[in-house]
Amino acid sequence: MPGMKNLDFAFLLEMYGCMLTDRQRELMEFYYWEDMSLGEAAEYLGITRQAVRDGIKRGEQTLSLYEQKLAMAEKISRCREIFDTITEISDENSIGEFPFENIKKIYELAKSGRELIS
Amino acid sequence: MPGMKNLDFAFLLEMYGCMLTDRQRELMEFYYWEDMSLGEAAEYLGITRQAVRDGIKRGEQTLSLYEQKLAMAEKISRCREIFDTITEISDENSIGEFPFENIKKIYELAKSGRELIS
Repeated sequence: MPGMKNLDFAFLLEMYGCMLTDRQRELMEFYYWEDMSLGEAAEYLGITRQAVRDGIKRGEQTLSLYEQKLAMAEKISRCREIFDTITEISDENSIGEFPFENIKKIYELAKSGRELIS
Repeated sequence: MPGMKNLDFAFLLEMYGCMLTDRQRELMEFYYWEDMSLGEAAEYLGITRQAVRDGIKRGEQTLSLYEQKLAMAEKISRCREIFDTITEISDENSIGEFPFENIKKIYELAKSGRELIS
């Protein structure tokens, strides 16, 4: 809801932005990615602040609906974390001291990632 | 296109099935998941074979459109493969003989997975 930026929308915009109208996407990118205020976006586009607010609100509703139905953002976000953790654990600096617990950790992480998207 | 089952639709149905109408989803599940023929689905539902064909065709168009826009199915499918491969490599049976090449392989796999969904 404009006025209280919910940063989750920045991520949902990444996932489902292509499902918005061009104008809605533009407004949401200004607001969520480029951190413009409603007033700045309005001035930049030569429209009213209310029109900016309405466009963003409709965009947010659409993005929420897609996430509610597809639940992809949450899964992708979790997969990113898992890949990052595995990358860290297996980073080649660990050579010479790669304990069995780490192999086990990697195994569990990969398994949980797979289950998440099965 | 009904008559020539494209099994990719079975997977797209998994991903985006919730975006179809109830009837379209029902028809596609019969056809793609339960391997019914058009005629069998028609008889089961008490509708014409043509209505089954049309519903499936519209469903396929919708699923294709979502994948074209969101490209999630391809990414998720690739992530699954990566998690499976990491799970295999790190399977605890490998204990005692876990060569450095395997750690390196895991590192590269996890990095490629992360890039895929960044």
